[in-house]
Amino acid sequence: MKKILLIGAGRSTISLIDYLLENLEKENWTLLVGDQNIDFAKSKIGDHSRASAIAFDVTDDEQREQEISDSDIVISMLPAHMHVSVAKDCIRFKKNMVTASYVSKEMRALEQDAIANGVTIINEIGVDPGIDHMSAMKVIDEIRGKGGKIEEFETFTGGLIAPESDDNPWNYKFTWNPRNVVLAGQGGAVKFIQSGTYKYIPYHKLFRRTEIIDVEGYGKFEGYANRDSLMYRSVYQLEDIKTMYRGTLRRPGFSRAWNVFVQLGATDDSYQIENSDQMTFRDFINLFLAYNPNDSVELKLKHYLNMHQDDVELFDKLEWLDIFKSIRIPLKNASPAQILQYILERKWSLSKEDKDMIVMWHKFVYELDGSIHELHSSMVVKGEDSLRTAMAKTVGYPVAIAAKMLLKGVIDRPGIQIPIAREIYEPVLSELRRYGVDFKEKLIQ
Amino acid sequence: MKKILLIGAGRSTISLIDYLLENLEKENWTLLVGDQNIDFAKSKIGDHSRASAIAFDVTDDEQREQEISDSDIVISMLPAHMHVSVAKDCIRFKKNMVTASYVSKEMRALEQDAIANGVTIINEIGVDPGIDHMSAMKVIDEIRGKGGKIEEFETFTGGLIAPESDDNPWNYKFTWNPRNVVLAGQGGAVKFIQSGTYKYIPYHKLFRRTEIIDVEGYGKFEGYANRDSLMYRSVYQLEDIKTMYRGTLRRPGFSRAWNVFVQLGATDDSYQIENSDQMTFRDFINLFLAYNPNDSVELKLKHYLNMHQDDVELFDKLEWLDIFKSIRIPLKNASPAQILQYILERKWSLSKEDKDMIVMWHKFVYELDGSIHELHSSMVVKGEDSLRTAMAKTVGYPVAIAAKMLLKGVIDRPGIQIPIAREIYEPVLSELRRYGVDFKEKLIQ
Repeated sequence: MKKILLIGAGRSTISLIDYLLENLEKENWTLLVGDQNIDFAKSKIGDHSRASAIAFDVTDDEQREQEISDSDIVISMLPAHMHVSVAKDCIRFKKNMVTASYVSKEMRALEQDAIANGVTIINEIGVDPGIDHMSAMKVIDEIRGKGGKIEEFETFTGGLIAPESDDNPWNYKFTWNPRNVVLAGQGGAVKFIQSGTYKYIPYHKLFRRTEIIDVEGYGKFEGYANRDSLMYRSVYQLEDIKTMYRGTLRRPGFSRAWNVFVQLGATDDSYQIENSDQMTFRDFINLFLAYNPNDSVELKLKHYLNMHQDDVELFDKLEWLDIFKSIRIPLKNASPAQILQYILERKWSLSKEDKDMIVMWHKFVYELDGSIHELHSSMVVKGEDSLRTAMAKTVGYPVAIAAKMLLKGVIDRPGIQIPIAREIYEPVLSELRRYGVDFKEKLIQ
Repeated sequence: MKKILLIGAGRSTISLIDYLLENLEKENWTLLVGDQNIDFAKSKIGDHSRASAIAFDVTDDEQREQEISDSDIVISMLPAHMHVSVAKDCIRFKKNMVTASYVSKEMRALEQDAIANGVTIINEIGVDPGIDHMSAMKVIDEIRGKGGKIEEFETFTGGLIAPESDDNPWNYKFTWNPRNVVLAGQGGAVKFIQSGTYKYIPYHKLFRRTEIIDVEGYGKFEGYANRDSLMYRSVYQLEDIKTMYRGTLRRPGFSRAWNVFVQLGATDDSYQIENSDQMTFRDFINLFLAYNPNDSVELKLKHYLNMHQDDVELFDKLEWLDIFKSIRIPLKNASPAQILQYILERKWSLSKEDKDMIVMWHKFVYELDGSIHELHSSMVVKGEDSLRTAMAKTVGYPVAIAAKMLLKGVIDRPGIQIPIAREIYEPVLSELRRYGVDFKEKLIQ
């Protein structure tokens, strides 16, 4: 009987826990779910006889060490910066570990210790990062296997609202951490390479440098670039590739409107606004506009950002958020980003029946037998409702499947891993298909 | 016989050292100048019998402690972040100290220790910060003394090129640290208050939010806002003021053209460009523009930044810098800011005979006896040549005078000080007049 320790039972873990509960009997496992808030953990496991819940404080060394040493595998669904102390204990007690987060520098530094102790730590095995790595590497390995050479790779993922629940002018709702959406793109220039030419985009231009992508059956999307695409040349062993571009999808028109907040400085999280709780949404927008007691906030905004009278769709998006209304901000000395998040959450939250949608799209250009080919590969997954979201499924299932493969010994690759090796991605992708996570490939030329 | 220890003998210390050398006999002082590069120190003191030079390494605890304990006052002209270890030793050995730099958090934290040891550490006593504080506080104290109430305060300073040496389309040359000019405005949103309304400007909008200022006899200037004006409300004890705005002066048209580099992302110092030493100036600009093999860099730039065909003055400024030329960048894996600095230094460096010019302008609006008054106060100082610059004079003389006042016991205010107390600013401003640092006041209404 093997024991799984899952640390962190936030919203996005519902499908992960569902999967584990379903497999406990069959695989002869037990599951211990730990969360700061024991009620989160309890509510997700129900009355399953093989599952139990505890209040868990990851900063409590004694508890952390005891529970990890007492388990057979550890799944950490904590915020990214909290994984490292868990990973260190996993290495010490020789337990494999799975996380969906990006490999941090601190995590990377554990590579030698993990190998020395025979411990496999799989990271970046959610949806993005995760399914993107696996599905891309599958195609890349196939092309290489045939003797082809990859010339260009572009990949886009978006966590969006499903068409049937899409009822607002932004064609967007929050389907994961709203704070991360507000801060998206910040923290450094965007870097990629296109047709052999390096390209760098500062944050304040990011949302005006979009590409349009058409996903068959789902219409058009626009993509803006992610932070650092350059480093993925070495990750995917595509050092000589001419185009490497990773991006995020939204519905067309979103980025141009979002850019209004970027231009204003309303997404800034680096300072607090004095007396913000005495201001209204309208005052908030006016903070970023030049002083003029005679002009309206609306006109000053249009003028400042060069909007034309007939930019109706753009302006409608802004008005629909109530940003020009005299609604009181209930946050004290909040940052612009916190206030903007508050304004957006009033309007962009999923209602109970809403379905979200994850869209992923890859483009590969490769040379094979002397000619150039272009292959598109795309995936669309919809959620069931606001609880069992596509986000929860596409993050949770790969994590759960990877944990299973580790427990069964199907995967055994000591070190700090991401799922780019066939040994990892093949069994995971194969099982994901049973959950509707499937890619359609289309050879363009 | 008192001994002055001056640490740091960079370019901007020439007038400071001149002043000290002139006073050594009369005041019965000796001067020890320490610099990492002993030749810097030697060249500035010449063969003065009361002055000597040493190679000085501020990170060498033993040397630092010995020289500080052996002196009567310490002047630190090191880069700002290096003052703290000097200040700690000064407190320990009960020596007064002077710096021209902004008070850092670490320096502020020494307040209680300084008071307990009876040590006065005067900071921010160069030109900006320095002369701006002193000249503003003098007017503010005068208005208060008459029973007036300050409603608005705006202050601008610029380190510029004198009209007689102004021979380029930017009307600008580097008269101090070029790196600081390239990075100006970065590191956080600009904050000020105008007519009782808070205003925040993100970096990427800063150079489009300028004000025009006319300084009698010197023509028009444009000013952009400095980082945090709000904190000066408490510094100047003007908590209820309706307008508080601190800014930097350039000649009109500079900011709009500089904004081109900001928009591109060419002032970013947060990352390195791969293989920059294999690129040309033209390649550098193209890094920030969308990929298109058929369009010229010039056209892509104009289109991206919404320049019109008749924006000739703007485009001339850019062309004059040679940014569209295929000149090789000799810097390896450099940041955008480093490359831009290299491009600018080819064109913006002072020639030997060039004179620089410091312009400072204050505007006070105050209520007195029931009516509103507006007072302007301005100062213009020109350099003699590229060595004895206005910058060196306006930074160096106040520092030197403050050191003298401390040595003579005219100033004795233990703690971490900036020159806002009459006890400090009055004797310093008074002596500065002898060096041509003088303010013209003009009552507008």
